[in-house]
Amino acid sequence: MEIKKYLLPEKEMPRKWYNIMADMPTPMEPPLHPGTGQPCSPDDLAPIFPMNLIEQEMSTDRWIDIPEEVLDKYAIWRPSPLYRATGLEKALGTPAKIYFKNEGVSPAGSHKPNTAVAQAYYNKIAGTKKITTETGAGQWGSALSMSCAFFGIECKVFMVKVSYNQKPYRRLMMETWGANCIPSPSTETQAGRSILEKDPDSPGSLGMAISEAVEAAVTTPDTKYALGSVLNHVMIHQSIIGLEAIKQMKMAGDYPDIIIGSAGGGSNFAGLAMPFALDKINGKDIDIIAVEPASCPTLTRGPFAYDFGDTVKMTPLLPMHTLGHNFVPAPLHAGGLRYHGMSPIVSQLVLDGIVRPESVRQMETFEAGLKFARSEGYISAPECNHAIAMTIKEALKAKEEGKEKTILFNWSGHGLVDMRAYESYFKGNLSDMDLPQDVIDAALKDLENLPKPRQAT
Amino acid sequence: MEIKKYLLPEKEMPRKWYNIMADMPTPMEPPLHPGTGQPCSPDDLAPIFPMNLIEQEMSTDRWIDIPEEVLDKYAIWRPSPLYRATGLEKALGTPAKIYFKNEGVSPAGSHKPNTAVAQAYYNKIAGTKKITTETGAGQWGSALSMSCAFFGIECKVFMVKVSYNQKPYRRLMMETWGANCIPSPSTETQAGRSILEKDPDSPGSLGMAISEAVEAAVTTPDTKYALGSVLNHVMIHQSIIGLEAIKQMKMAGDYPDIIIGSAGGGSNFAGLAMPFALDKINGKDIDIIAVEPASCPTLTRGPFAYDFGDTVKMTPLLPMHTLGHNFVPAPLHAGGLRYHGMSPIVSQLVLDGIVRPESVRQMETFEAGLKFARSEGYISAPECNHAIAMTIKEALKAKEEGKEKTILFNWSGHGLVDMRAYESYFKGNLSDMDLPQDVIDAALKDLENLPKPRQAT
Repeated sequence: MEIKKYLLPEKEMPRKWYNIMADMPTPMEPPLHPGTGQPCSPDDLAPIFPMNLIEQEMSTDRWIDIPEEVLDKYAIWRPSPLYRATGLEKALGTPAKIYFKNEGVSPAGSHKPNTAVAQAYYNKIAGTKKITTETGAGQWGSALSMSCAFFGIECKVFMVKVSYNQKPYRRLMMETWGANCIPSPSTETQAGRSILEKDPDSPGSLGMAISEAVEAAVTTPDTKYALGSVLNHVMIHQSIIGLEAIKQMKMAGDYPDIIIGSAGGGSNFAGLAMPFALDKINGKDIDIIAVEPASCPTLTRGPFAYDFGDTVKMTPLLPMHTLGHNFVPAPLHAGGLRYHGMSPIVSQLVLDGIVRPESVRQMETFEAGLKFARSEGYISAPECNHAIAMTIKEALKAKEEGKEKTILFNWSGHGLVDMRAYESYFKGNLSDMDLPQDVIDAALKDLENLPKPRQAT
Repeated sequence: MEIKKYLLPEKEMPRKWYNIMADMPTPMEPPLHPGTGQPCSPDDLAPIFPMNLIEQEMSTDRWIDIPEEVLDKYAIWRPSPLYRATGLEKALGTPAKIYFKNEGVSPAGSHKPNTAVAQAYYNKIAGTKKITTETGAGQWGSALSMSCAFFGIECKVFMVKVSYNQKPYRRLMMETWGANCIPSPSTETQAGRSILEKDPDSPGSLGMAISEAVEAAVTTPDTKYALGSVLNHVMIHQSIIGLEAIKQMKMAGDYPDIIIGSAGGGSNFAGLAMPFALDKINGKDIDIIAVEPASCPTLTRGPFAYDFGDTVKMTPLLPMHTLGHNFVPAPLHAGGLRYHGMSPIVSQLVLDGIVRPESVRQMETFEAGLKFARSEGYISAPECNHAIAMTIKEALKAKEEGKEKTILFNWSGHGLVDMRAYESYFKGNLSDMDLPQDVIDAALKDLENLPKPRQAT
């Protein structure tokens, strides 16, 4: 029998998160206050986040202890298995060895609970009674709903309207865990109302939903906001993926030449990649690829600039690759990748040549997903199909070149509640949604009067 | 950190299935030919099953080797984790220790691939080009679709119409794996047409869908039929659940006082229970409970009799608890439990006092599912909520009695593609669907002229 998966016992689960802020080749620039344009102080962030998470956001400690209560919840699905994709290898006839980290085993079906459980816990001990958030495809919203149920916190989720309509099952999951989920833009906030006034048929975007969730948090007592990606503390929590993968690659007696993850806000990609990126910073030769949709090409076609995380400019300005805070991505099915910005950490790693960005088109991602489902069994989330499409490209390149490359990608979640996306694909209703340059140029105009980071591109 | 789950390494996966036919307290009576009423010969079954599976169906060997090719596919998700439900224990405040076997980790999301992979493999080596089957909730149909993709076999699934309409995502999963799924009763078979003639609005039933799938198999070249439950060879394949659980309970340093599984055709229940039932047959004191819906109470209100497995009387007569082959269960959301009959093995174990049957009502199953989701994270299939409801009853009884019972149940699958069922529950559209005695009495009339087993009740 061939070994398919490498299982780490619970007792070997990492007890500390890794914080790459301690090892960045170039020091990161700070977030700026949206009003003053000055570097944010912890107090500036206190209305929306609890202080313990703000401290993590600004920490440069290399290792951060994972609280016992978080480990207890992680143990529901972690350590997640590392798989050898022998079925896919055979289907491709490639000499490449393909591994993937299976983050779909969490109850919410993706990597998102890694940070959701941690954020719910830190909020709990800080006295937060209610958390607001936004969600795209619904993976983050469902992960936070579950985590709030674990710690007895009320949860309200603003879900991007196009996804709310495409993915009713994710809303129902949130309700099953006791959360309240509404489509964004909504009439519940000033931000939502002003967007609807301009465009009553707005499909919504993550940027808009963030505006609504932040506003709801600051205007409700004992309420904080939670973000599922982009920010440093989220990346820190997700580092457990890569830390486990390092141990598991050792179990397999192997080490990756190529690491691949899909990147929307950057958290599943960074979660797997960061602990390996440290090896690369220290001189190891690894190709680390962040894959994004060609129709929302933040890293591949957006400049590195200071920009708002949301549409109505309530959040701090972050130094990141961005398409502009008013960019509304086409309604591609990978809702989790429809974000105008990108994690500042991932952006900086791209600037520093540690991470290589690539984009793939929607149609090839579904082709890749089908190939994976029929050879490995697992049906992938549309987001995850981006990583698979890139993996297949690299595996076929290795075949052409006759090289026995070792590829590791992050299987960030299953697609069992995204089956309508597959239906659209089967029916021939999907396209690549190529993005004209003038649309990007127009969106980037909004960056003109904002402060510029030192390394602006 | 508390231990949540007990993981068996792949190399310790059982290499043989357990066949309880070797150890039954009372010898089983044979299936009878539907035309002659005489015991079926292997040749009688040859038009619908390959001979290697017929041999297993009739085998009394205690141990049966699992083929290497099947182990390779099992390794995609097996050994499945054994969980300690500490979250549920705390939510209930019970002194009972609750364990569950997590069969939801398979790519299809349930225990069904345990036999689907095996059946696809045996068909493959027997030269079958196409397999037909029926499916209720869609768990079996999707498991078989995936398994056929693995072995390059064409697959056609007749899905009970009420479930086809309630569960579009399961159909889409089947299509993603390359299968063809149509609602039953259909116009594609003589059986389907004759049912539709009498009742054009028939919601369908497993019995009807079996008739269609069997007919399609015998009338198409190189085509066989596959059944996802009820038959002996299916129970044999599912025994891997219990065999793994025995090893994992040892890892936990524990042994169950009570074993619980939901029972429709009986396969997930028997899969967990049979290897433990052997201990009970050998004198150990274990309470082994098969839980069924009060609205389809095969074991609790149906007699032990010879009956057809399908509606139009094409299958052999099986000695089993049954509500009559024309019984059409109410459209409860646990589609996998909507079957008029029951595995002959499970039926016989009930007759012999090894298994205790219980029924639970639909509303309490959803209440149980919510409690489980909010304490353990995982959202359960409606079928599985039956086992959870019974587990909660037993855990609360243990609390009342102040006893530290050890309970083990089979978490047969997740409910992520059954979210519409939860929606109906939230909206207040569900009821218990109590079953009047005269409906049962009327359905049982169809058994009057059939042969009777020795132990008829």
